[in-house]
Formats: sequence, structure tokens, C-alpha cells
Amino acid sequence: MDIKDVGESNLIQRIADTYRPSHSSIIVGIGDDAAALSVSSQTVLLTTCDLLVEDVHFDLSFTDSYYLGRKALAVNLSDIAAMGGTARYFLVSLALPPHLSLSFVDDLYRGMMELADECHTQLVGGDTNASPSTLMIAITVLGEAHPDNLLKRNGAQAGDSIFVTGTLGDAALGLLLLQNGPPHTAPSTVHTLIARHRSPLPRLTEGKKLADNHLASAMIDISDGLLTDLRRILTASNKGATVFLSQLPHSKDFEQNHLYPEKTKIDCALAGGEDYELLFTAHPSKEKEILRSSTTGDAPITKIGEVNDSQELVVLDHDQKPYPVSHLGYDHFLSTR
Amino acid sequence: MDIKDVGESNLIQRIADTYRPSHSSIIVGIGDDAAALSVSSQTVLLTTCDLLVEDVHFDLSFTDSYYLGRKALAVNLSDIAAMGGTARYFLVSLALPPHLSLSFVDDLYRGMMELADECHTQLVGGDTNASPSTLMIAITVLGEAHPDNLLKRNGAQAGDSIFVTGTLGDAALGLLLLQNGPPHTAPSTVHTLIARHRSPLPRLTEGKKLADNHLASAMIDISDGLLTDLRRILTASNKGATVFLSQLPHSKDFEQNHLYPEKTKIDCALAGGEDYELLFTAHPSKEKEILRSSTTGDAPITKIGEVNDSQELVVLDHDQKPYPVSHLGYDHFLSTR
Repeated sequence: MDIKDVGESNLIQRIADTYRPSHSSIIVGIGDDAAALSVSSQTVLLTTCDLLVEDVHFDLSFTDSYYLGRKALAVNLSDIAAMGGTARYFLVSLALPPHLSLSFVDDLYRGMMELADECHTQLVGGDTNASPSTLMIAITVLGEAHPDNLLKRNGAQAGDSIFVTGTLGDAALGLLLLQNGPPHTAPSTVHTLIARHRSPLPRLTEGKKLADNHLASAMIDISDGLLTDLRRILTASNKGATVFLSQLPHSKDFEQNHLYPEKTKIDCALAGGEDYELLFTAHPSKEKEILRSSTTGDAPITKIGEVNDSQELVVLDHDQKPYPVSHLGYDHFLSTR
Repeated sequence: MDIKDVGESNLIQRIADTYRPSHSSIIVGIGDDAAALSVSSQTVLLTTCDLLVEDVHFDLSFTDSYYLGRKALAVNLSDIAAMGGTARYFLVSLALPPHLSLSFVDDLYRGMMELADECHTQLVGGDTNASPSTLMIAITVLGEAHPDNLLKRNGAQAGDSIFVTGTLGDAALGLLLLQNGPPHTAPSTVHTLIARHRSPLPRLTEGKKLADNHLASAMIDISDGLLTDLRRILTASNKGATVFLSQLPHSKDFEQNHLYPEKTKIDCALAGGEDYELLFTAHPSKEKEILRSSTTGDAPITKIGEVNDSQELVVLDHDQKPYPVSHLGYDHFLSTR
């Protein structure tokens, strides 16, 4: 059996099942956004790594090295945000094809370091290597959290509300515009959508605020699409959920973009991925404080659904009828739990 | 200017010069074997990452996935050993070509996890991805040390003796045997040399003992060859050195291998690389304790040279005459300091 027949998540599950770490210092091992390691009674060390592979995770005809550098770091910082932590340090391993220009690498670092400055994160090491042909960027981020404030995936309770930060579908619509080539008559707003694809913002401030104020019961960042990442929370928590299409938050540029049919846009929001917004669950009693906390310059927070005790994830459309998601590959949605 | 015109160490230097970390918690940033980060008055967090790229760092016709897994982790653990630290946790990012078999990945993990068990190190996370064609393994190791016991590269003093653990040249001679195909009549001892190339042992116990007993003034692991790695200590410490060819330690299998001319073997020991032994300097007053400490089942330790105030690195042959190293690319040996 080959790797292509197994799939990434099955492979990770296989590894996690075979090598379940048992050391008492490991608070969270494989299978959450970041590992959480006890270093003192006051501090949990968070660590996560993400590898970006050319022509798998990025296409150099759709981005440039500055934005690629920003994004490679952003997706890792987003994992720290999803634990409610503070990012502190990062390491960068590069595999560089020989034909790459020095200015490409300089711009890649410039992008990374600008975002690192914005997020108060320090570059402390790395490894630079030749690659026969494919560019790869492996980043490890180290962060920290208070042990009482960690936000894992497995804490969702029946009756909890489901929230997201920011808006959904922008990044996927931006990628679609890049892939199809925006028409010359496209409104200038397409640039905002493309920027959301090229340069996601890790929600570190929002994640930490939710964690430190004990507002959320479970959290994840949306890297692979709302449905996939919500499914991860539900599977870890052994719950089901209903999501209301009418409540999904969209940017003005997303709303006003009529280059694609409505259904395509809905699918971007449900399954497009790469928004790197935070998706979290919370007890209804926290709702007021959550929505209030989002008015101070952070990303807005929107309630989009409810957790329940079923084993199903149902999306309801504007008429409260189930929105079919089979064409998105979610036929047996929670069947692999 | 392209990457291929710059070279790896110049690129790393360029990055380190541009982005010199300034945060007070960073005890050691880019440019040593591992970064050292202050987490408490008693503990320094060590972190290092190494990326192994197919057809650059390994050739799948010379090894198998079990040994590749062991080696990928070993080279990272060796960096923790070179700081005098204890390895605690690791993360693994893989880029896997689609044609790879599942058993290949299972064996890769089996190799990693066996060495991890031997070294009391825990797998806590990672990332698994598709790769268009090239297999890559990026590992990050987290370790710890007491802040007073850290061993950096920049502490060598004039008058210090130079020591190495274990034996030199085995891994390079083993690779040569693999590349040329060992003759059918080759003695069985070639297997030991090949094993040294395939499966290096990180010298964690030895490194920690040297650090905890304050026996060494500077330390590095030999990944790129004795001369290159000694040069790194000398450059960081602003010193020169003399190395005595007659004192280089060799394994019995290395000594008894007569498939290659003596000069080839000397060059393997001086510049071959991948021995992953520890190279360190120490005040002469520590010599007796150092040599005594190596008799208890650890790798033996051998004195191979002396640090001086010159700006030169000189290798003396058995007749105490300078051994020419220009054919190894060391013409202007310390000129780039």
C-alpha cells in the first residue's frame, strides 16, 4: 500500500496510535494544534511545526517570496493562537533549489521577519539546505501558556455555541480568483480577497484573550476549511453540531463579489480552508462577554452554530433546511470517528 | 546571484547578520549547535532543527528507511549533545512522495522511535505532507540544560587541548565503500564502517558529563568533518590550532581496511564528516579527569591537538611536518573569519 492510498490524516492517526507518548510532562501530544509540555507549575511550553511544500501548499505563480515568508510563519503562529498561547520563538529549515535567486531568499526572510516583529516572535535557529528541485519551508514555533488556560480540541459540550473570528471564505475565493485569472473588469475588491489568501493573519491576540478569560471550551484554527476543522473539534469531543449558513460571517468584498455563483461562494466558506480564523465553542453564558470582547479592535466574533449530543454535523440553509455537503466530500461526515 | 553561487554557510551567516536576535531571554541564537533560551533560573531550553533531503543528504540506494529514521533523529540529538544538554522532545515533519510505500514510513518511524527510546526522548508532534518527488525529513529537537553548564563554540582559549570522542573517519570510509560498491572479497569489517555511516550514535551521555563537570571550554559535534567543525570553534573563539595526525583516533576496522590508499583514509578522518563525534577544547589541567571519565563504558576520548593564539589551523603529519590540506579545500583556512 502506498502513501497516496492512505491520506494524510489517516497517516497521522496511525502514527499517533502507534506511538502514544506516555511521559507525565506531556500535557498534549500528537493530535492537537500544538504539543503542550509542562516546564513549570506556571508555564506550559507549546510547540508546533508545519512544512510548506512547493506545488503542494503554494504555487509561486500565485504569490511572491515576501508573502510566502509571511504565510509560512503565519500558519504556524495560528496553531499557537489556537491553543490560546503566546508565540515566543521560531526556527526555519529551508530546502532551496539551486536556481533560486538570493533576493528570493532575502525577501522570504523579510516577509517572515516582518510578521515575526508584528507578533513579537524571535528567530532563534534553523537549517539551510540544497534541494534538487522543490522548495520547502519547515517552521517550528515555540510558545507558552499558563497551564490553566490551555485551549484544546476536546472540550466542546452539548449546548455550547460555536463561534468564529473574522470572516469565512475570503482566502478560498482569493485562490479561485488567482487560479482562474481575475477578469480585467474585476473590481478592485478582488485584491483584498487575494491578499487574504496570500497573507493570513494569525489571531494570537484573540486566542489569548479567549483563553486567559476562560471564555471557550474548545478551539482550533481553520486551516483546512470550516467543516473539516469543526469536525476535528466534534470528533475529539465526541459531539455533533448544527451550523447555520445564514450566520456565517463574510467580508464586504466577499459579499460584493459576483464573479462566481452563490453556491461556489458558500462552498468556499464551508470547505475552502486557509482562512486561519479561530473556531471555538463556548458555554451560552459566555456569549455576551465573548461578543463584547471582540469590539476593541480585534477581529469580530460571530456565533455560527450549536454543539449537540448527536453524532452528526448538519448545515442548515437560509430556509432551515439541510444544506447538502456531499459534493464537498462530507457524505459520511462523522463516520470515521 | 543564485543560491548555488553563495553556499550554505554564507547564506546562514547572511541571515544571522541581518536578523541578530536581541531579546534578553535568548542566551544563544543562530550560529551554534542549538539555540539556548532562558525559561527559568535553573533551566535553559535547547532547540535545534535539521532537514534531511533525499539525494542531498541521503541516497536510498545506500540505506533503508529504518536506518534513515534513526539517522534523521541522531543528527539532531547530536546537536543537543554538543551543547552539553539533555534531549527531551522532538517533532517530525515529513514530505512524502506519493509512490512511497506505507511500510517505508512505518520503518522510518520504527527507526526514529527506537533511537528515541534509547535516548529517552519523546515524540510530541509533527506534520505529514505530500511531496511531488523528493523525500524530506525535518526534525526539531527540544532539550534542556542548566544555564551554568552550557557548552558553546566560542570558549576555546590559547593553551587548551583539543579532544574528540570515539573514532574519526569511519562514516566517510563507510560511505566510500557504499559509493564504490565493496569488493566481494572485502573483509566483514566493512560492515562496521558502513553501519557507522548509516546509523551514527549521538554522544548525549558524554556531552552532558563534560558539561555538568565543567570539563570543556568549547564544544561542537563533527557533522561536516573534523577540520570544518574545528574551524567553527576557532572562528567563534578567535583562535588558531595545531592538530597532530598521529594522534587521531581510529577504529580497528578503519585501521585494518586496506581497500583505499592511506591518504584517502587520512582525508576521510580530516574532512569526511558525519562521524557525529564530539569535538571539544579544555584547559590542560582538566586532561586527567577527561581521560579518566571516558573509561566507564562511554565513547573513549582522545587528545588530538592544541589551541593557540595564531590565526592558523595547522595539521602536522607523523614527522611533525605540515600536512597539506589544500586538496581538501582548506587553502585559506581561517581567512573568512
